[in-house]
Amino acid sequence: MQTIIEAFSRIREKKPLIHFLTNYVTVNDCANITLACGGSPIMADEIKEVEEIVSLASAVVINIGTANDQTAAAMLRTGCYANQLDIPVILDPVGAGISKFRNNLLQILLKEINFTAIKGNISEMKYLSDGICSTQGVDASFHDLVSEENLSEMALYARKLSVITGSMIAITGPIDLVADSQRVFMIRNGCSTMSSVTGTGCMGGAVLGCTMAANPPEIDLEAAVTAIAAMGICGELAYEQMQKYNYGLNTYRNLIIDAISQLDASIFEARQKIEQF
Amino acid sequence: MQTIIEAFSRIREKKPLIHFLTNYVTVNDCANITLACGGSPIMADEIKEVEEIVSLASAVVINIGTANDQTAAAMLRTGCYANQLDIPVILDPVGAGISKFRNNLLQILLKEINFTAIKGNISEMKYLSDGICSTQGVDASFHDLVSEENLSEMALYARKLSVITGSMIAITGPIDLVADSQRVFMIRNGCSTMSSVTGTGCMGGAVLGCTMAANPPEIDLEAAVTAIAAMGICGELAYEQMQKYNYGLNTYRNLIIDAISQLDASIFEARQKIEQF
Amino acid sequence: MQTIIEAFSRIREKKPLIHFLTNYVTVNDCANITLACGGSPIMADEIKEVEEIVSLASAVVINIGTANDQTAAAMLRTGCYANQLDIPVILDPVGAGISKFRNNLLQILLKEINFTAIKGNISEMKYLSDGICSTQGVDASFHDLVSEENLSEMALYARKLSVITGSMIAITGPIDLVADSQRVFMIRNGCSTMSSVTGTGCMGGAVLGCTMAANPPEIDLEAAVTAIAAMGICGELAYEQMQKYNYGLNTYRNLIIDAISQLDASIFEARQKIEQF
Repeated sequence: MQTIIEAFSRIREKKPLIHFLTNYVTVNDCANITLACGGSPIMADEIKEVEEIVSLASAVVINIGTANDQTAAAMLRTGCYANQLDIPVILDPVGAGISKFRNNLLQILLKEINFTAIKGNISEMKYLSDGICSTQGVDASFHDLVSEENLSEMALYARKLSVITGSMIAITGPIDLVADSQRVFMIRNGCSTMSSVTGTGCMGGAVLGCTMAANPPEIDLEAAVTAIAAMGICGELAYEQMQKYNYGLNTYRNLIIDAISQLDASIFEARQKIEQF
Repeated sequence: MQTIIEAFSRIREKKPLIHFLTNYVTVNDCANITLACGGSPIMADEIKEVEEIVSLASAVVINIGTANDQTAAAMLRTGCYANQLDIPVILDPVGAGISKFRNNLLQILLKEINFTAIKGNISEMKYLSDGICSTQGVDASFHDLVSEENLSEMALYARKLSVITGSMIAITGPIDLVADSQRVFMIRNGCSTMSSVTGTGCMGGAVLGCTMAANPPEIDLEAAVTAIAAMGICGELAYEQMQKYNYGLNTYRNLIIDAISQLDASIFEARQKIEQF
Repeated sequence: MQTIIEAFSRIREKKPLIHFLTNYVTVNDCANITLACGGSPIMADEIKEVEEIVSLASAVVINIGTANDQTAAAMLRTGCYANQLDIPVILDPVGAGISKFRNNLLQILLKEINFTAIKGNISEMKYLSDGICSTQGVDASFHDLVSEENLSEMALYARKLSVITGSMIAITGPIDLVADSQRVFMIRNGCSTMSSVTGTGCMGGAVLGCTMAANPPEIDLEAAVTAIAAMGICGELAYEQMQKYNYGLNTYRNLIIDAISQLDASIFEARQKIEQF
């Protein structure tokens, strides 16, 4: 557990630069949560400059939420070059399965780039694993969510997906799972209101970029657990504030980023509900 | 009035998916207000995938605020396909009249797409009706605003515009008018501070998408009234909070979205200032 | 000092329309801070319409944060046309020096456009002056920051840069410098937390657009000082609120814009730490 907790603090020590190729909906939140973690964000997707920018960065986050033909090409080049430089690359396959365009893009990205971690909801992950589209919009269809009932099945699934992709896998939902080919962690932090504001998923990808960038590759799995747990803990802290003061949903969104900026080792330790499977 | 009030609650029951082709300035606010209403937003404008995404959606919102040649083509295709699928399509003709590019785009969109509703300020609407540009930037030039003095003239104008376009018409201003070819509603909710933050117009279009999507076409006019009144009511509620606690304008913006997330039938009923002309 | 203070109030009298070609990360903040100052923002970068939009505007702000080939062409055309119309043009050379693409773009923009003011951190400015890249990501590398020790050297540098570029120069940092070829002002407002939220630099460019637009060219230098000091003062006011109520970083960002919307001549006068060198 100490490794997991320290993986967050290390962002503030290292102040890593994270290069984002991300959607225009939540890009401001991704930048602000990166800063709130202690990292430094740079958003750039002109294909002519991505390689030079990768070479300054400590991690790359690729989020296909509003990808188009041009940004798709930039994503591919960025990811490949990050692999050459041995920099962690995180994939957030937003809306996997909802269009041929996204599916083709994901197929190419997964073929050409070795992702350090892939983070998505169960629908997105299922599309990646079996190409069968079970996605409604961008949320997991309900029968698919990770729950106490299907936990061991899902844990096995996450490990298998890690084997198939060669990446660490973070499946977000009521219970979050973070797995490599050998080990699976379950995280019971977070709350359902997080899905009532846009960008909590994307922000999770940003935090993942920060923890991967700041920590050595030997503890990649722990660092991924840290990121997903941090988002969940801050979702809870924000929810408690919202309930206490009867705030609305936009303030809730602000409070999540506020909480990340105030998260420290003692809060993390006290609030975390992380278990190894 | 019951129909109008229930049209809002129905968003929370139906949780409709709204597909946005919108500007990059206020896109995050549009996503968050859609969620705050109870809907689910998806932003996508790569032309290769818009048809598949429309087919998942219950309404489409087209906002030309930062349209360019590529997104314009995607808007056209999306709207046409939504018409084929009989899904409501809302147009927010931001900045109509300020450039040939926007005017040509609007001409094409209005020719090829049957819009369920068109929402704009009086300058934008006037451009649509007579092609004579009276727009200064993106705000209505003052002599044009709907007021107690020109109300009957404006109400007639709104109905005529509905006849010309075949769409419901929502003209926003100090008094909002919502009309089809037969009936006109006046809404005296809202406050002038709403125009001191960016995106209240765009958010109105988002709420319109939500109410159109969640309600049957027979009550389209009432559902449009609901959306415009909801924005006005929440603009007032936020203003009262701002005054009470001496907040500034960015908090005001947050409070509008907060208020939408907390809006229910009883608040709506108590606050609405809706009259049929 | 009276000239400097009044230059802010004049935004609220004149309500100038500011045309932005800016990045998609902080575009919403730029729009909201413009409104909070009393101006009116319009964001548009389709090359087909930029000239018509410039002709409606009182200033143009060009920020290359997420420029790409298309927006770069629009920036060039917009700036040249603004020069023809004698409208102030502000350059925010975000990330100058970090890629050949940005450097080439800046070279072209600086060759073809007469900028009224250029605002950046010392790394960006150094790149502009000597083409030697000392940039790490988009933040100034530490040894370069303006400080009490290197103040006279930096003041001379700022004046020389103004001579080279023919523009007023605003170098932001712990101490901000605003210079033309003859005079240099030092501003000791602001606080380091401003760099822990995204967009404070971009917002400074927006405020600069507002003060340039609202004031006569004879007091351009004073108006530039006003803008930079206003951001610093509001950064401090927001920081005091954050400390007092133990807020996090996203609320801090909101409070900066809130403070701008509440800034008046008396607060400005009481808080300003402006000195002529």
